[in-house]
Amino acid sequence: MLYTSPALETLIERLSRLPTIGRKTAQRLALYLLKQPAEEAQLLARAIAELHERVHTCSICANITDDDPCPICCDARRDRSIICVVEEPNDVLTIERTNEFRGLYHVLGGSLSPLEGVGPDELKIRELLDRLRTEGDDAVREIILAMDPNVEGEATTLYLARLLHPIVERVTRIARGIPIGSDLEFADQATLARALEGRTVV
Amino acid sequence: MLYTSPALETLIERLSRLPTIGRKTAQRLALYLLKQPAEEAQLLARAIAELHERVHTCSICANITDDDPCPICCDARRDRSIICVVEEPNDVLTIERTNEFRGLYHVLGGSLSPLEGVGPDELKIRELLDRLRTEGDDAVREIILAMDPNVEGEATTLYLARLLHPIVERVTRIARGIPIGSDLEFADQATLARALEGRTVV
Repeated sequence: MLYTSPALETLIERLSRLPTIGRKTAQRLALYLLKQPAEEAQLLARAIAELHERVHTCSICANITDDDPCPICCDARRDRSIICVVEEPNDVLTIERTNEFRGLYHVLGGSLSPLEGVGPDELKIRELLDRLRTEGDDAVREIILAMDPNVEGEATTLYLARLLHPIVERVTRIARGIPIGSDLEFADQATLARALEGRTVV
Repeated sequence: MLYTSPALETLIERLSRLPTIGRKTAQRLALYLLKQPAEEAQLLARAIAELHERVHTCSICANITDDDPCPICCDARRDRSIICVVEEPNDVLTIERTNEFRGLYHVLGGSLSPLEGVGPDELKIRELLDRLRTEGDDAVREIILAMDPNVEGEATTLYLARLLHPIVERVTRIARGIPIGSDLEFADQATLARALEGRTVV
């Protein structure tokens, strides 16, 4: 026996399709929405309904945006000679939060993963090359590769580095090492090895 | 700096108002919805938008329902002489799942909690009394109190028991004891004390 309300049942079923949301959480969320004023639920419904209509992919950097080109690509104060290549739109946000980077971005839309059928053609690599070719006067002098520190990220970094070296002056990658605030004792071997390898003069 | 898409930002903000959903989960859900086909997001949006329009409270038992009275109250096969009183609509579902109860329900909408300003008038207690008075021929012979096993539930049980004793033949409460599948060793003192108190002849 399910809920005595098919409308509630439908919502629970829909919510439980979302990642990290099981049937119990979906139930809790649906009952919460039911207890809230109808306007609250309407505002959430509208935000979801408008998502696909309003959110687009920037035709330059492939980041998500409401306007095309995106605010970062349009921002005249940003350094157009450096492009940071990331896997997902989320990564742009993460790097922006540091306030350390004032260049542009390029979002690949994933990382190379032959096992999952993701090859170079599935990523926005050609778009990156086109972009480097057409930048013209305002030439890109450095590409920073900021992939996730896992096997797929590593493969993508090496693939892109080989591809970009003949075209761009400087191809760099973000440092891998001991995270700030952690303890040397708890660092795994691979991280510590990278930290030693990447040591800098004090 | 937030997302370069205000539409996405709005959705994340709305999602993070839901219980158990923090900013990080909200981000993840929003990006997931963006990656899904637009129709999937539309179906979820519609389910939320229609919730308050379609879901009502049953005028008899105060359970949630699309039609009034609810399917349980309308079901002629159910035993109309027993009413099980519960705190929330969720509890009806939980009890229905056992397939052990074939009577009717009454949903209070919470439990007595003076600290949170919930007194008898905030709960559907008067509606329960009215219901007992108007049932007529088909008299209610037993009321089962199935409150949550906590302080508020206990207070509500005792309050209702005193109120109902003069009106209904039998006022019972669900048994408190050792849960099936658990280990006697892990039972807390209060539960074990109730289990001893409520012992039955084998």
